[in-house]
Amino acid sequence: MPDESNDRLTPSRLEAFSDGVIAVIITIMVLELRVPSPAEMSTADAIRLDLKMIAVYLLSFIQTGIYWVNHHYLLDDVERVSHSLLWSNLALLFCMSLIPFGTLWIANRGVAPAPVAVYAVCFVAPAIAWMALSTVICSQTGIRPANGPVIQTVSAVLNVGAIFVALRSPWTALAMIGFVAFLWLLPPRRIVELTHTGHSHPPTR
Amino acid sequence: MPDESNDRLTPSRLEAFSDGVIAVIITIMVLELRVPSPAEMSTADAIRLDLKMIAVYLLSFIQTGIYWVNHHYLLDDVERVSHSLLWSNLALLFCMSLIPFGTLWIANRGVAPAPVAVYAVCFVAPAIAWMALSTVICSQTGIRPANGPVIQTVSAVLNVGAIFVALRSPWTALAMIGFVAFLWLLPPRRIVELTHTGHSHPPTR
Amino acid sequence: MPDESNDRLTPSRLEAFSDGVIAVIITIMVLELRVPSPAEMSTADAIRLDLKMIAVYLLSFIQTGIYWVNHHYLLDDVERVSHSLLWSNLALLFCMSLIPFGTLWIANRGVAPAPVAVYAVCFVAPAIAWMALSTVICSQTGIRPANGPVIQTVSAVLNVGAIFVALRSPWTALAMIGFVAFLWLLPPRRIVELTHTGHSHPPTR
Amino acid sequence: MPDESNDRLTPSRLEAFSDGVIAVIITIMVLELRVPSPAEMSTADAIRLDLKMIAVYLLSFIQTGIYWVNHHYLLDDVERVSHSLLWSNLALLFCMSLIPFGTLWIANRGVAPAPVAVYAVCFVAPAIAWMALSTVICSQTGIRPANGPVIQTVSAVLNVGAIFVALRSPWTALAMIGFVAFLWLLPPRRIVELTHTGHSHPPTR
Repeated sequence: MPDESNDRLTPSRLEAFSDGVIAVIITIMVLELRVPSPAEMSTADAIRLDLKMIAVYLLSFIQTGIYWVNHHYLLDDVERVSHSLLWSNLALLFCMSLIPFGTLWIANRGVAPAPVAVYAVCFVAPAIAWMALSTVICSQTGIRPANGPVIQTVSAVLNVGAIFVALRSPWTALAMIGFVAFLWLLPPRRIVELTHTGHSHPPTR
Repeated sequence: MPDESNDRLTPSRLEAFSDGVIAVIITIMVLELRVPSPAEMSTADAIRLDLKMIAVYLLSFIQTGIYWVNHHYLLDDVERVSHSLLWSNLALLFCMSLIPFGTLWIANRGVAPAPVAVYAVCFVAPAIAWMALSTVICSQTGIRPANGPVIQTVSAVLNVGAIFVALRSPWTALAMIGFVAFLWLLPPRRIVELTHTGHSHPPTR
Repeated sequence: MPDESNDRLTPSRLEAFSDGVIAVIITIMVLELRVPSPAEMSTADAIRLDLKMIAVYLLSFIQTGIYWVNHHYLLDDVERVSHSLLWSNLALLFCMSLIPFGTLWIANRGVAPAPVAVYAVCFVAPAIAWMALSTVICSQTGIRPANGPVIQTVSAVLNVGAIFVALRSPWTALAMIGFVAFLWLLPPRRIVELTHTGHSHPPTR
Repeated sequence: MPDESNDRLTPSRLEAFSDGVIAVIITIMVLELRVPSPAEMSTADAIRLDLKMIAVYLLSFIQTGIYWVNHHYLLDDVERVSHSLLWSNLALLFCMSLIPFGTLWIANRGVAPAPVAVYAVCFVAPAIAWMALSTVICSQTGIRPANGPVIQTVSAVLNVGAIFVALRSPWTALAMIGFVAFLWLLPPRRIVELTHTGHSHPPTR
């Protein structure tokens, strides 16, 4: 039994490391914004391009922030770091590190079908890793989040849908991803009303 | 009531994550200094250009440092991380991450009207986010910083003014932003005298 | 005797700093993926190139993750940070920071003989530093990991072998490095069976 | 009196933030090594160039590591973070962040007189900031490091000398900076013998 678990790597240490990785992920994206600096571009064009990029960066930032917030709630009931928990957590961090990568695609190639589709894929990947991680944690702790699945399903449908919508209308796809972010930004109580879930456990949603 | 707050995300954890993000922000700016390396530029010119850039980097570094110091004081009275506190804090971190972005504009295009105006905007953004965050915290804790508003108003006027001054005289605008940094660098007591505020609460200013 | 040890730098502080460095190492690699963005490349080619790069990045990520996990177990029995422990730990961090460097070689020059050989060297370096660090710790604590040497020897042979195999068949070399990662990803118990070691100390392996 | 100090920003928090900044500084340097990737350069030349760069990176890494180690010892006796301590610490972090900048100069322009002189300047800056910080701390705590000044003086002379030597012989200058690193890497006891200081306080040196 002790062979199956890694008793000495405490949950708080796992959280501290995850926080460090997420802090880097959420910040290095700003380095990607350095693209529109060719000397031949006029200042007005450079500013217009940058505002577009800052909007995309803001979207990536909020999505990463949502993961950070919920990651804490998810790990809160964990008392013991098992081998599968450890690696599903690292899988989540890996998938989250694709978010700056997707942001770069748009920075390099603009708000066009292919880059936005790649960008949407970069949000689906951490969502899948998140489901894997929460399944591992639920099976360990026996605690299941109350209204989490509802929001998660809506988010998943919108994110996956954005991949295909992007091929026709990249701006609509960005709006869909933005709407997912907006859903999670609402104060917990309002979410509860929207999803008609009675006994909610707001922080875990 | 507990639905409105996120009881389990403690203030100290919020601070640790914010510190991580700020540590990355304050350090990655040095990566932006890599611009003046074309092989055809003479060494003397490269050094002259670099000294200018290091001065701008120093300004960005000090401003970020000021936010870091005051962020701790601001969060010090917080006992409970509410949904609005959480997201106004992330909004501040987002706006602070624009500081390296503004620094890059100057690195790429020199100390000219448009880049310095963009740079000044990148200081106004976190100042607004700061006011939002401190309003949220004041309404929660009921504690209001004594002389904070005075310095903050002076800083806000100078920072916003720098945007417009930059369009005519970029160096004057930089000097204005530098003067804001200087104001905050003064030891608390001297600030108190300058602003004629009686019962000050220096660290929170 | 107290002259030989640095009593005041505690093991937990050493671990926190190492975690910070590893968090940066594991995340900045994603910045290296920014290479395939020439405007003249078709989207399909860019995606194909990126999938290849993401596979290499995943490999680097897992290897770094393995070091992170095992680093905690290794330092767990340490009670006192000696001068040699301190610097062999920094040597490990230095060698681990070569992993992003090797990943960049492949990002710049593709999956070809020389880049993959360089990449393999970048995994041999931290493996040697790891052996030095664990030797220092064993001589201090007197605790020796049970099945660690077996897995470590297999990994070392495969990693060193990959350098030479890469010169003929770079993909085979990558597969060898990937197999090392797979070995460490197996849950502890299964490793124990594979290596036929009776009394295992799984987390330290 | 309380107006002069920032009672609520604890030394341990100051150390944690400094560690975060140093962790980023020591790691991002590896990103600077990405220079020698022009497709037209032969693999053998690229490897030769990279080995040179890794040697320089190693030097920068060790110097940064030395600062990290000694920073902990320096802050260890501090009980209260005053305004001047806070900002002299941030000044040290700023100067340390010039080390990656100096490393970049060599990466971009090779081991030539001017780049190595710039590189040496980037080591003199944090040495000066270090003296300022330790003066502030000594005047606060009344504790003065025993043999610190001896090593520090030798290091300062060698580092400042390297600036001028670099203009004639860049490799000799690098050797001088390397010798400084070697001096600090020696186990404390041996340093004590070398500098003939009786009652040493090794960790603080």
